[in-house]
Amino acid sequence: MNTEELTQAIQAHLDDLTKPKGSLGKLETYAKRLALLQGKVPPRIEKKAVFVLAGDHGIVDEGVSLYPKAVTAQMMYNFMAGGAGINVLARACGFDVFAVDAGVDADLPKEWIVSDAHKQNNGTGSPHFFSMKACKGSANFYKQPALTEAEFALCIENGKALAQFAIRHHYDMVAIGDMGIGNTSSAAALAIAFGLAPDEIIDRGTGIDDAMLKHKYTIITEAVTKHCPQNKTHDPEYIGRCFAGPELATAAGIILGLKDSGIACMLDGFPITAAALLASKLDPTVLEYCFAGHESHVKGHKTMLKAMGLEPVVTLEMRLGEGTGAVIGGFIVSLGARIASEMATFSSMNVSKAEKEEIDY
Amino acid sequence: MNTEELTQAIQAHLDDLTKPKGSLGKLETYAKRLALLQGKVPPRIEKKAVFVLAGDHGIVDEGVSLYPKAVTAQMMYNFMAGGAGINVLARACGFDVFAVDAGVDADLPKEWIVSDAHKQNNGTGSPHFFSMKACKGSANFYKQPALTEAEFALCIENGKALAQFAIRHHYDMVAIGDMGIGNTSSAAALAIAFGLAPDEIIDRGTGIDDAMLKHKYTIITEAVTKHCPQNKTHDPEYIGRCFAGPELATAAGIILGLKDSGIACMLDGFPITAAALLASKLDPTVLEYCFAGHESHVKGHKTMLKAMGLEPVVTLEMRLGEGTGAVIGGFIVSLGARIASEMATFSSMNVSKAEKEEIDY
Repeated sequence: MNTEELTQAIQAHLDDLTKPKGSLGKLETYAKRLALLQGKVPPRIEKKAVFVLAGDHGIVDEGVSLYPKAVTAQMMYNFMAGGAGINVLARACGFDVFAVDAGVDADLPKEWIVSDAHKQNNGTGSPHFFSMKACKGSANFYKQPALTEAEFALCIENGKALAQFAIRHHYDMVAIGDMGIGNTSSAAALAIAFGLAPDEIIDRGTGIDDAMLKHKYTIITEAVTKHCPQNKTHDPEYIGRCFAGPELATAAGIILGLKDSGIACMLDGFPITAAALLASKLDPTVLEYCFAGHESHVKGHKTMLKAMGLEPVVTLEMRLGEGTGAVIGGFIVSLGARIASEMATFSSMNVSKAEKEEIDY
Repeated sequence: MNTEELTQAIQAHLDDLTKPKGSLGKLETYAKRLALLQGKVPPRIEKKAVFVLAGDHGIVDEGVSLYPKAVTAQMMYNFMAGGAGINVLARACGFDVFAVDAGVDADLPKEWIVSDAHKQNNGTGSPHFFSMKACKGSANFYKQPALTEAEFALCIENGKALAQFAIRHHYDMVAIGDMGIGNTSSAAALAIAFGLAPDEIIDRGTGIDDAMLKHKYTIITEAVTKHCPQNKTHDPEYIGRCFAGPELATAAGIILGLKDSGIACMLDGFPITAAALLASKLDPTVLEYCFAGHESHVKGHKTMLKAMGLEPVVTLEMRLGEGTGAVIGGFIVSLGARIASEMATFSSMNVSKAEKEEIDY
């Protein structure tokens, strides 16, 4: 079926379900998007994965975050032990968890690397591990580009390999989360370099006072001006490697790699949405299969979503990252597929067209 | 523990979870409300039920709805066959379904009544049935009170019996949904009689044109003025029996019956929220354990929630009823209990206080 035929077929199917037309609101919108994506009516979401990408950021040397890099690695231990927020929420929402070292500035246990990541964890919340360390943290982008050309290219390739893993193992939905001290600065710089207003993007962050906020603002805006003078045009790849930390570049790689796969991609909060912005500059069609899982409590997230034309599924004032907003939003998007594939139809109930008009209360 | 001790204990527990303080936003708010409700830290939500209450409304004789009463009974067949929206969403969100004939104007199959409703359906989406017919539909409230004193009292008692059923079978969460042609008129009349502005409450409804909307507005406001002259005070019970159809009075009974049970009560859309408004006028403490599952696409719902100080969990533009918004919201509220009971704590990781301050990124 072509797009027009699919659009008509899913609409006719939704209108044949035993409910007033349109009464399931956004669940019907999600069902339509999934049908177009999968090329089938009704769409189905049976297997869901979340990739939690971790990386470090040289920009923390400028004092933009209150917390030390060491936390990134500590949280990887927590993910692998199954005790982090994303483990609990992935289990509750039916997602398999894959923790990915995209560029943590620490050596992580070799024994985490096993050969059976293909035996997914079936919603148990105990993650598999991918070692895809493109660098030991990015460089300080206030002084030089965050990633070299080779590191950026490797991150994109690593992301595409994760997308291939998801495709090969028949996932219908991929959520992406992040863990990286300093990555809101990285994400803010990306957004500003792509033209969004610094005042609407740069956020206070946890526990930061006025003086530190001013400092963070100065560091980020000066870095953007330095790498991307306004009188020049800059290609998205260049902007990407100037500011994206390894986990954000890898996230962009996953998003790009899901093209034409029929897999729905659930975005998490501010950092992963910045990665999606980068991916969309490299290939605007990625927005066709990206869904904003939630609107986070980080100031610039709403602005960024609006710029990309994405509507968040839920707004729960969360700002944890890790993919926590992506899996909750993904659960709700998947309900669109559930109603489309499981509700009774007027046709199956042998209700005549006249009666059907009447029953459309 | 008293309320203050519980408040401190759940806050201390949430702050000990391996995440920045407050970063799970509303999920933490839900965890706190559930802890206070259950009197324990962490709170748990293990068994969830949805009662889908069906009833008919004499007011349809005034032409306020485009659809015939017969649809109410037809949908009961759909619930019992497991094919309605609520069956699918309850299954997806982990709720057992109980369809209740609270006052349908039709004889429903005797064989639906079985003695083993206590053997719940464990999330299969195939409902059990309760026959609690207080009347064969309400009277036309434009002409006379919708329910007699005896019928209203019976509905409240039936609702309390359903609450007892939930308590006896150890449900932690009860969602309430409705099915009843004409019940938005009934709900609007209740809201207006309790002091809300007709302009903010009366909605167009599906497929209703300007002329019909004007007619609906006239019928409802004239009926309220007739039964409740403004120069008199009216007790909530009187207002309840004047306008509530059987399913709305039964819903109020469930809500009242859940008092002191520790069970969280998830409200659905406009009609069930009107029933909660009635219950809250009979006993204001019910609002302590009521949660607004969603904000529906019915105009007056937002106004009513605001008047009751309830914040909706999700806004998905749904207007189906049946409890569909209540189970989705209930699933998300239950995630508050999941994070509180399943996430690792800094204490269990033997992180020192100093390190904990540092790890609070």
